Amino acid sequence: MSVTKCEVRRGAYYDSVVLMHLQRALSQLPGVHDAGVVMATEANLELLAESDLLGPEADGAGADDLLLAVKAEDKAQAEAALAQVDALLKQRRSNAGQTFRPRSLSGAIKSLPQAEWVLISVPGRYAAAVAREALEADKHVFLYSDNVALEDEVALKRLAGEKGMLLMGPDCGTAIINGVGLGFANRARRGAIGLVAASGTGLQAITSHIQRQGAGISQAIGTGGRDLAAEVGGATTLQALDVLAGDEQTEVIVLVSKPPAAEVAARILARARAIAGPVVVYFMGQPVTTRRVGNLHFAFNLSDAAELAVSASRDAHAKPDPEMRFEQLGSRFVRGLFSGGTLAYEMVLGLQGLAAPLFSNVPVREEQRLPNALRSEGHTILDMGADAFTQGRLHPMMDNTLRIRRLQQEAGDAQVGLVILDVVLGEGSHPDPAAELAPAIALAIAEHAVEVAVLLVGTEDDPQDLSGQREQLMKAGAHVFESTVELVAAIVQSIEPPVGEPAPVSSRAFGRPLAAINVGLESFYDSLVGQGAEAIHVAWRPPAGGNEKMMALLAKLKRS
Amino acid sequence: MSVTKCEVRRGAYYDSVVLMHLQRALSQLPGVHDAGVVMATEANLELLAESDLLGPEADGAGADDLLLAVKAEDKAQAEAALAQVDALLKQRRSNAGQTFRPRSLSGAIKSLPQAEWVLISVPGRYAAAVAREALEADKHVFLYSDNVALEDEVALKRLAGEKGMLLMGPDCGTAIINGVGLGFANRARRGAIGLVAASGTGLQAITSHIQRQGAGISQAIGTGGRDLAAEVGGATTLQALDVLAGDEQTEVIVLVSKPPAAEVAARILARARAIAGPVVVYFMGQPVTTRRVGNLHFAFNLSDAAELAVSASRDAHAKPDPEMRFEQLGSRFVRGLFSGGTLAYEMVLGLQGLAAPLFSNVPVREEQRLPNALRSEGHTILDMGADAFTQGRLHPMMDNTLRIRRLQQEAGDAQVGLVILDVVLGEGSHPDPAAELAPAIALAIAEHAVEVAVLLVGTEDDPQDLSGQREQLMKAGAHVFESTVELVAAIVQSIEPPVGEPAPVSSRAFGRPLAAINVGLESFYDSLVGQGAEAIHVAWRPPAGGNEKMMALLAKLKRS
Repeated sequence: MSVTKCEVRRGAYYDSVVLMHLQRALSQLPGVHDAGVVMATEANLELLAESDLLGPEADGAGADDLLLAVKAEDKAQAEAALAQVDALLKQRRSNAGQTFRPRSLSGAIKSLPQAEWVLISVPGRYAAAVAREALEADKHVFLYSDNVALEDEVALKRLAGEKGMLLMGPDCGTAIINGVGLGFANRARRGAIGLVAASGTGLQAITSHIQRQGAGISQAIGTGGRDLAAEVGGATTLQALDVLAGDEQTEVIVLVSKPPAAEVAARILARARAIAGPVVVYFMGQPVTTRRVGNLHFAFNLSDAAELAVSASRDAHAKPDPEMRFEQLGSRFVRGLFSGGTLAYEMVLGLQGLAAPLFSNVPVREEQRLPNALRSEGHTILDMGADAFTQGRLHPMMDNTLRIRRLQQEAGDAQVGLVILDVVLGEGSHPDPAAELAPAIALAIAEHAVEVAVLLVGTEDDPQDLSGQREQLMKAGAHVFESTVELVAAIVQSIEPPVGEPAPVSSRAFGRPLAAINVGLESFYDSLVGQGAEAIHVAWRPPAGGNEKMMALLAKLKRS
Repeated sequence: MSVTKCEVRRGAYYDSVVLMHLQRALSQLPGVHDAGVVMATEANLELLAESDLLGPEADGAGADDLLLAVKAEDKAQAEAALAQVDALLKQRRSNAGQTFRPRSLSGAIKSLPQAEWVLISVPGRYAAAVAREALEADKHVFLYSDNVALEDEVALKRLAGEKGMLLMGPDCGTAIINGVGLGFANRARRGAIGLVAASGTGLQAITSHIQRQGAGISQAIGTGGRDLAAEVGGATTLQALDVLAGDEQTEVIVLVSKPPAAEVAARILARARAIAGPVVVYFMGQPVTTRRVGNLHFAFNLSDAAELAVSASRDAHAKPDPEMRFEQLGSRFVRGLFSGGTLAYEMVLGLQGLAAPLFSNVPVREEQRLPNALRSEGHTILDMGADAFTQGRLHPMMDNTLRIRRLQQEAGDAQVGLVILDVVLGEGSHPDPAAELAPAIALAIAEHAVEVAVLLVGTEDDPQDLSGQREQLMKAGAHVFESTVELVAAIVQSIEPPVGEPAPVSSRAFGRPLAAINVGLESFYDSLVGQGAEAIHVAWRPPAGGNEKMMALLAKLKRS
């Protein structure tokens, strides 16, 4: 048998480290089986209930209240344990160090004016205000706190952009700046690989794997998990790419994120393509179809991202392969007229995120669906073997009529720079497709400023004579490809990257010894100092109200 | 100026090849600018309208009606062209060959009793009945026709399963059986690679690329694009895997499909895992996170699939690497308790389709979402650093309390065979996580029949001492991994594949010269004969009604 007793202290704020230590101390008291010390959020109440640590005394407690729960041998022991809470807190206070601690961010800035960085790990509802104060004071911010509202994130990142400051986070777990780890960070040698990550442990796993392979890190910039959401638009990621692109030490960039919003991915990749050196991209859960497009290398897991980065850094000074480009494309559109549904689908897979806007009647994502298959929009990839085109008609592998008609239509569209046709040879297909297609291709090229690419599928044993078909098509002026992968690469390299808005970031804070102000978890301060950084810890407390007795106690604890 | 005139012939049926030739002949008549000859489906009416080939005479025409449209210099020339339609059809008739043609499938079976295969390419609404007749007569079916109802597909495939027959299709564009291409197929040398494809041009592109690399094809089996939809359940794919697994010539199997339904993918992959030789899997658009798990190789594009198959066929007799296995897992569940959200997410990406049912609070797909994060179900991967677990608490990288509690809870669940913990070292993290976790791990292993795996992330320079942490964890009995990729591979290889229902297919028809009956497009018959196969063409026509004059004309054309 055991008895659970709870106590609620309304409006009391404590640092999570303090709560953890108190909980541990309570569990070790005589007769105590288990203890819980948490802010009474709904999630925490559920967790306590799971462990049989929730009593009726907790009824009505809310997120601002401190909840103490003890499960003990009997009622007397439970109550005795709860009675010791204040003593336990006082004891921790007397164990604490004695350094001077400013009580506000502005005080800390006066004490350590050379600090260019502010680490913030106060509870989410207070974090935005602290971050704003730091940005206003022209500091870069590492915002560890989670539970920050999305609209606050958007506003803070807008401010950061105006100020030329980096705002890493919210919910940014990790970074390595000038060789010093912020938040959670692995110790790694310095080197030529710069990381940008909307994913904390992703960044850590890649760092660790790079270190294992003998290479090193220049800067590792966390962005917060929501940075690549549509609302935020990759604000910090774009800044971070610029910082790393301008950093002399960085030769290779690794970009890692959980699945980004499609339009944000396109924007980020466009920016990445404009960078001179290799960029390794790992968008988790987004299918990789092409391993490399120009300077972009696509990874399919964390270890792979690290390995690609290390090998790219070793080849960073190698001469790149010559690149196939479509001269007419620029900012105009691609129109793909496919007889093979799978080929069309693989083109959509390959182009998505790299060519925008992208539409298809075989979309990978619903927002890519072409409203009317008879009218192309933006970049369009059509499967003309789809039911709508073949009812009561021969398949376009046998009958080229519809595709030739559409080729003329697309080539006559001034927005179009490239038309793609696939030509699938073999048994059952048209006996001589090039004989019909080549004149139509030559005409389109002659009459309009377009190029034509042909994806040619077949073997030398096919009845149509593969080499002869290729020759006829090339004579007509078509560029002939043998795989979607090569074709996608050529297209992406020919599309003019949209002109990106400048996102200049003050680079003063990079490449010199790190000095930082810590607001929140003390352990982050300890870690900074342990790494040899200049740092100061702010004895922060919530701006208003709360349980006066507890707040005073806390203040003493923090001040001591 | 030009004038468009249309004519509707109600209920007239024509083979698409006839329509194409008629359209071509009309366009070449004097004064004619353009012509259209199509069944008056909605899609075709739209297409005609796009080309300015639709006149008021077409009002009210429907899918069963033949629509003739001519755009000419003037009205007289348009009408003159239309007046020649019957003559043009007769002319084609007199050009046709003279071979005897049975008028029914049963007649064809009597004429060519050794035919084990029936190719069907009649219009979709008639196709199911013909396919049923073929299956009832114990023939394998290659069903090219599209626009076949899903419920017909399900019923036909059930019948095929009962009969031990393969039903390729509907909408199956391609196959290579006993060296003979059916439908659209590239000519390739015979070899050790067997293909199963729910994707026609996918199969053709892979075949062509395999041929280019000097390897060859044993059998290539199309399944139709909907085979891996939830309703159909991969019926033909499962049969095809069995056929190829039992085929002496086949050493490597390639499986390709557009995105399959999740539960079907899991079933197919379980079956594939039970095959002795290598199986290359390309599920288009499904992210690849692991290149290889046991005998499964995952490809990320069509060329890659072909290349993996060729290299696997060259290594097919090499001794496989020794495999790490969890002995306790079998048919029990995995529970992952992660502090790193990205690591958890990558585990979900890696396990999905390979471990079912799979749940998570960081799901890749919505159906994977764990209803209550406090209660695991099936295989569960938890991110315990998610907001719900960390409000007013320290992150689990600093505070192991919640994870240890959950470890005890999971280990005590008799359904659980493996618990995973990640341990992320570095600045900011717990100073000695193994000191707390190792005893809890040892206790869980001692008290319950479970194993524990640890995913350890860190560098030798981290303050916690990576080697020391690893040693403590291993002493406690944990298996220690350094990447999600290795961990996923070990899990998948330890899960007992579900016992698959047998899907025995009559193999009599494989490995001998192909003999086939063709019902539908005559060009497919020509192709069979051209490849040296024994074949017979059925002079098929719709079973009922229609325009009598036209039907008679058609019948003559076909019979001649």
